[in-house]
Amino acid sequence: MSIRVGIVGVSGYGGGEVLRICAGHPSFDVAYVAGESSAGQKLGERFAGITPKLAEMKIQKWSPAALPKLDLVFVSLPTGQSRDAVAKVPAGVKIVDVGGDHRYVDGWVYGLADVWPEKIRAASRVANPGCYPAAALTAMAPLIAGGLVKVDGPIIIDALSGISGAGRGGGSPEAQLGFAEVNEDVSAYGLLKHPHVPEMAATVRELGGAGGGPSPRIVFTPHLIPMTRGILATCYLAGDADTKQCLSAARKFYAGRPFVRVVDQPPHSKWATGSNWAFISYAAGDGTIIALGAIDNLGKGAAGAAVQNANLMCGLEETAGLSGAALWP
Amino acid sequence: MSIRVGIVGVSGYGGGEVLRICAGHPSFDVAYVAGESSAGQKLGERFAGITPKLAEMKIQKWSPAALPKLDLVFVSLPTGQSRDAVAKVPAGVKIVDVGGDHRYVDGWVYGLADVWPEKIRAASRVANPGCYPAAALTAMAPLIAGGLVKVDGPIIIDALSGISGAGRGGGSPEAQLGFAEVNEDVSAYGLLKHPHVPEMAATVRELGGAGGGPSPRIVFTPHLIPMTRGILATCYLAGDADTKQCLSAARKFYAGRPFVRVVDQPPHSKWATGSNWAFISYAAGDGTIIALGAIDNLGKGAAGAAVQNANLMCGLEETAGLSGAALWP
Amino acid sequence: MSIRVGIVGVSGYGGGEVLRICAGHPSFDVAYVAGESSAGQKLGERFAGITPKLAEMKIQKWSPAALPKLDLVFVSLPTGQSRDAVAKVPAGVKIVDVGGDHRYVDGWVYGLADVWPEKIRAASRVANPGCYPAAALTAMAPLIAGGLVKVDGPIIIDALSGISGAGRGGGSPEAQLGFAEVNEDVSAYGLLKHPHVPEMAATVRELGGAGGGPSPRIVFTPHLIPMTRGILATCYLAGDADTKQCLSAARKFYAGRPFVRVVDQPPHSKWATGSNWAFISYAAGDGTIIALGAIDNLGKGAAGAAVQNANLMCGLEETAGLSGAALWP
Amino acid sequence: MSIRVGIVGVSGYGGGEVLRICAGHPSFDVAYVAGESSAGQKLGERFAGITPKLAEMKIQKWSPAALPKLDLVFVSLPTGQSRDAVAKVPAGVKIVDVGGDHRYVDGWVYGLADVWPEKIRAASRVANPGCYPAAALTAMAPLIAGGLVKVDGPIIIDALSGISGAGRGGGSPEAQLGFAEVNEDVSAYGLLKHPHVPEMAATVRELGGAGGGPSPRIVFTPHLIPMTRGILATCYLAGDADTKQCLSAARKFYAGRPFVRVVDQPPHSKWATGSNWAFISYAAGDGTIIALGAIDNLGKGAAGAAVQNANLMCGLEETAGLSGAALWP
Repeated sequence: MSIRVGIVGVSGYGGGEVLRICAGHPSFDVAYVAGESSAGQKLGERFAGITPKLAEMKIQKWSPAALPKLDLVFVSLPTGQSRDAVAKVPAGVKIVDVGGDHRYVDGWVYGLADVWPEKIRAASRVANPGCYPAAALTAMAPLIAGGLVKVDGPIIIDALSGISGAGRGGGSPEAQLGFAEVNEDVSAYGLLKHPHVPEMAATVRELGGAGGGPSPRIVFTPHLIPMTRGILATCYLAGDADTKQCLSAARKFYAGRPFVRVVDQPPHSKWATGSNWAFISYAAGDGTIIALGAIDNLGKGAAGAAVQNANLMCGLEETAGLSGAALWP
Repeated sequence: MSIRVGIVGVSGYGGGEVLRICAGHPSFDVAYVAGESSAGQKLGERFAGITPKLAEMKIQKWSPAALPKLDLVFVSLPTGQSRDAVAKVPAGVKIVDVGGDHRYVDGWVYGLADVWPEKIRAASRVANPGCYPAAALTAMAPLIAGGLVKVDGPIIIDALSGISGAGRGGGSPEAQLGFAEVNEDVSAYGLLKHPHVPEMAATVRELGGAGGGPSPRIVFTPHLIPMTRGILATCYLAGDADTKQCLSAARKFYAGRPFVRVVDQPPHSKWATGSNWAFISYAAGDGTIIALGAIDNLGKGAAGAAVQNANLMCGLEETAGLSGAALWP
Repeated sequence: MSIRVGIVGVSGYGGGEVLRICAGHPSFDVAYVAGESSAGQKLGERFAGITPKLAEMKIQKWSPAALPKLDLVFVSLPTGQSRDAVAKVPAGVKIVDVGGDHRYVDGWVYGLADVWPEKIRAASRVANPGCYPAAALTAMAPLIAGGLVKVDGPIIIDALSGISGAGRGGGSPEAQLGFAEVNEDVSAYGLLKHPHVPEMAATVRELGGAGGGPSPRIVFTPHLIPMTRGILATCYLAGDADTKQCLSAARKFYAGRPFVRVVDQPPHSKWATGSNWAFISYAAGDGTIIALGAIDNLGKGAAGAAVQNANLMCGLEETAGLSGAALWP
Repeated sequence: MSIRVGIVGVSGYGGGEVLRICAGHPSFDVAYVAGESSAGQKLGERFAGITPKLAEMKIQKWSPAALPKLDLVFVSLPTGQSRDAVAKVPAGVKIVDVGGDHRYVDGWVYGLADVWPEKIRAASRVANPGCYPAAALTAMAPLIAGGLVKVDGPIIIDALSGISGAGRGGGSPEAQLGFAEVNEDVSAYGLLKHPHVPEMAATVRELGGAGGGPSPRIVFTPHLIPMTRGILATCYLAGDADTKQCLSAARKFYAGRPFVRVVDQPPHSKWATGSNWAFISYAAGDGTIIALGAIDNLGKGAAGAAVQNANLMCGLEETAGLSGAALWP
């Protein structure tokens, strides 16, 4: 069965990774690619390492009104740029929004596929989790769903991302993402006001049960570290469970789920490079639980999760196109 | 058709990459993995990001006398450690030696698959080219075979490798390959006496025709640069062809060959990351021809080439398991 | 005035940085250098970029009984290796222990020079703070001393270090600190049991006043990130102060102190490279205060702080030898 | 004695490094700093790690007609932007042009200070060598001046530079110098037409003696490698000298010169980080001589050399402000 997919925003890092995965997908046929600055170029001019066949495909100017016949479209645009356009996509075309415009928006399912695959199977509009939430929520979900943590105090999420998470160009007017200045440097940013907080709070609340209690307080600090790919989220929660209980809860929660791997030691982001794996672990004691989640920000944090969602939406094997080992080293 | 393969030296970087590729290969069934220091461990303890099924496989102590039934074995051991052992492998088991012990050795075919696939199809013992020669020879072959260069003067090959090329542990008793010292550093090594020179000289001679003239003089300078994967070879040859003629000769020479991509601009090593691509280009003028070759040292420079050779030896599609796009960025 | 100093453990990263600073110090005369594995070599064989004069100095086998006449000795040895030996150093020789054996040990002053210089001026035995505590305590001290935080709940310190913090060799039997595996990777380690916790708890208690209440609970998570130098500590404390109040308290607390720079934006570790600066900042709201500290782990986190302590102990200008700008970029 | 210096183009990497060195210089008093995009800002807004005193200095709009009283001005502007403006600087103000506009231009001395200090002492207009030529010429000069090489065939210079060599912003309209794409990548650029070739050819000719023979043919290939600072030039020359003779010639040629260090092993670029050192070495055999030069591209390749030139022009000790050890690791 061949499913015709389109990729909008293909020349960005997220869209490019969707392209890479689709290039090796057994059922997806890339039938349309669109970009902004890259429109008119061939894919091979943007992605020298793409497969020779796709290298010849021309990048279109993105126009929702002029789509070819497609079964599903991946939209990977900067926040704020996809809402209007996406509304014009015909209802019969499934959409996975890799960007941030439709998370917890009416009519859209939040695409936390490892946690609630059944919701996604039934959906035709799915909003991918943000890259940081993907790492943090995957690690915290078993604790919250299992009632192992107290959500009256703050949940602290301290997260580290490779630079590709800031996007290609990143809206940077200057040298801020340039190698010479990013290399050998680390800093925090977006303190106490990062746009990923609401989706994390909403998900924590949803996982916490029907309670309807007050929204949990998320204190989220992202950092940029000098690597290209990878995210590690270190989450601090209040709770009396010990390390074993946390690991055990997570193994039970994710039993049979193909992409989440619960490990006994602190996970490395590199274990996930180029893959859709999420590695999670825990350490607990004295009333504090540390939940760790390590992913590839462009894999489970973006394109991998998007293809996983698309697989579910299309009734395919959830792991189709996503079964490869991570790159090492 | 399922072909049973073994991987010896699986815990090194070269062997690990063979494992990663085989994990996604449509016809290879990994039936045996062996290591030295890692014997007794499960693959998952060494390669956290390997596929779950392979993660449970146990690493054996390498013993050529006690092999299970295999169709082909990849041997990826440090130079000097494979000759005796490999001699004990039953004649019916095909061998690809990823290491350096059987290059231009009697009874073995030098596995320059992009140049002479037919030799490899007929062989049951194939020695992979070294990582540096893979980059340099792929770029120079069309010029030499086409008679575009004079080989009476020295051929200068200046090459840059990522650190994984030095191996895991690298025989380093100290901090020489440690991040803190390798990062933000570059140096040359092995000046005028690198072990990859003889195979390059022999190949240049073979490509140059039946002539039987004197062996060409190769001046080869490898450098370690601060990246994990990738090789770029910049080769300086004497010849009167211009850039266009060189590009044209290369496109003709590699016409129909699936992994060599001739490009108009200087190639980037990153274009090949995680793939079996070789990108080559040329610039020429005033009697000097610069030939450039960019590969992933663990892909076309080791494991990718090994699987390509194995595919040919087993009568499979040459690109089986090797058709994926490179990782980007 | 020339002060004769010795450096023990000179071939490690911390000792080497003490050497580098002393090479440019206006009053310190390096009169003795000792190492273990490097004994017998000249300094120039270990530090190619050292000044030509010092390059000729021979590294001695460390023997506290056979010291030349010295005014002060810097001891930079792995934890556990300095206690016995240091006890044999003559009482008239001042000691700065850059390593971890004498922190909060009887007869030794904890060398938090930016906070309590007067204690250090009076001391002849000073134990340098650990690299992580240097970053975290410098940022937290004004809040704790000023009564702006509640210490009944946990204080969470999430910190990121460059690889040189793990030492040269790092006791690593294998490739764990090798470039190929550390590059493009991040992970946490030492969860809930890092040896730097006690000195942080003791200092928080001391800064908190005469109270004598229960020891504060420190939850400390260090991470290794792929850079050579630099530490960023992100500390989460409970308190009702807002950002302005925190910044103001810090500016008052460190008024006139030469090395601590309170900044309005999240500090970058790179701002401190090669210097003794500590950059600190704050963000607060909804009952949580985030305190950020960025240093060079080998500067303010080790050798810079050691020389600052030595300056105070010797009655010199506190900034002697330490007044240079950071390296940029 | 206090010498009033100005720095034009202070917010670039080269100008910033001049600022850093001058901040610690015993005789230079920074009295004027000018920039383009940064005009109006304080130095501390651009260079967080600068010394507190200089942090308050305001960056001026560069205007040669409105200079304050200065003894010397460092001009560090992109190629093509300094010629007109510099012509308006009063004759009494000495100039060191760190940029590329006045190399081998009438009325200007080419500032190869390690080779011909006496020419520079007598000059009031000095053009700094380019960063690549600084590395290559320092290594090749003893061979050429000593008649050890034949210059009838091509001289091949293969050189590797850290990314800061491409400048801040680098004229890059896009992500080409962004961390995510530069990291884990290497490529050559400017093949057979780099603007540094003429100054290298002119210097080789000048060093070769009064001969007045034909200009030597320089084949120069620069590469960008993923590090912030550092250059390594690997030069291939024809000549019959052996390694010992080359090393000996270099030691004699640079006897007494304070910044050039002739070493027996291939030098590492990291040995020079943050310093004005140049490390050079040789390997020779079979008619080919390999000359290696390793420098910090912002030190000996730009700002260090500029200050060395300024010292000579002002009659100061040549090493003033430049005597520090390199940063390690």
